[in-house]
Amino acid sequence: MKESTERDDRLLALMVRTPDEPGMLHALTRVILEHRANITYVDIAERREDSSTIYFELEDVAAPDVLIGDLGALPIVRVVERAPSFAKVYGKRIIVIGGGAQVGQVVVGAVAEADRHNIRGERISVDTIPLVGEENLARAVRAVARLPRAVALVLAGALMGGDVARAVREIRGKGIIVLSLNMPGSVPDAADLVVSDPVQAGVMAVMAVSESARFDIRRHRGRRY
Amino acid sequence: MKESTERDDRLLALMVRTPDEPGMLHALTRVILEHRANITYVDIAERREDSSTIYFELEDVAAPDVLIGDLGALPIVRVVERAPSFAKVYGKRIIVIGGGAQVGQVVVGAVAEADRHNIRGERISVDTIPLVGEENLARAVRAVARLPRAVALVLAGALMGGDVARAVREIRGKGIIVLSLNMPGSVPDAADLVVSDPVQAGVMAVMAVSESARFDIRRHRGRRY
Repeated sequence: MKESTERDDRLLALMVRTPDEPGMLHALTRVILEHRANITYVDIAERREDSSTIYFELEDVAAPDVLIGDLGALPIVRVVERAPSFAKVYGKRIIVIGGGAQVGQVVVGAVAEADRHNIRGERISVDTIPLVGEENLARAVRAVARLPRAVALVLAGALMGGDVARAVREIRGKGIIVLSLNMPGSVPDAADLVVSDPVQAGVMAVMAVSESARFDIRRHRGRRY
Repeated sequence: MKESTERDDRLLALMVRTPDEPGMLHALTRVILEHRANITYVDIAERREDSSTIYFELEDVAAPDVLIGDLGALPIVRVVERAPSFAKVYGKRIIVIGGGAQVGQVVVGAVAEADRHNIRGERISVDTIPLVGEENLARAVRAVARLPRAVALVLAGALMGGDVARAVREIRGKGIIVLSLNMPGSVPDAADLVVSDPVQAGVMAVMAVSESARFDIRRHRGRRY
């Protein structure tokens, strides 16, 4: 907890409203670059007919109020507001992908366990998508590596292999922890950990990413429960 | 379905790898601006010690291959790759916030229903965070309006009111559909729809945002089931 709290304190999160026209992001990033701040997260939070709201999370901002003033002074900028960062509000994300029946049960376990951690001040979210088909699944697995704040994936199905297993190995190489239900196909062999009961798999996924749990995934890699 | 498929076809999704230094986003957006393309989504997909991967979704790109070539020609750019867009992979997002016990049951309903729609080609994700406390809840509710692709929120608790109800009215004003379980507090009165059974609430949330369901939330606004 300590480390992430410190990180949060150095973080400046801003909502900036501009007209919805090409060039807005280029103009805003010039000001941020002049302040030598690092953009750690950015997204277009809202697009309406005549306006667009861009959300930034910035690190290493020496003079936050001056930066806010400089952004506000741009003719294109209508409003600049501080906002709580997504990292602070929603925290780390566990992604659950697979068949509807199994995904639902994994989430029951994961949400119940995340509740216990979040009550004590952590922030762990559980995000899901029910999907079938090798191509759809492989694509969704690969996309986990580029989802902001995603740290672990649970594959919750009754048959997964082929390109899905290759995708699992790729995202493990990018630092994502992967749990799999016990099922036919090559995905269980590609995962960090195999758990037969879906509720237990959800609980263990949260334990693996929590900062307060004593469960260390490195000591259980390759095991089946 | 038709509309969103057409939208996908006009969309160019790119992963761009650069050094992890200030100024990268500013340099990339200059090239995008020169092509008069609209940035509809952007995020920093990966940050490592020495490199950073920025993910863009662009609209109205007249010459995608020329744009990719121009980005690749920048000295800071190490790799440019096309990627499937998040909209195509994960689709619309329903967010479920509240107590662990209720959130789990809402997701069981929502995921089972989303499964049926996704099998037919839609893309609906269900994302959750278990949270307690008026301040935490109000902050998480407000943040839903700036989550990319979020279209509906289900509040799944046993007591919610005060600032949470104000936050519900604010995000409804920004186009988010809000369902609430039947519970004490002022949140049910602030929501679009109140559903007593959590599994049913999850199913109805998916029906409300699906493009293929016949359920029209406008005809049920203010009702309690």
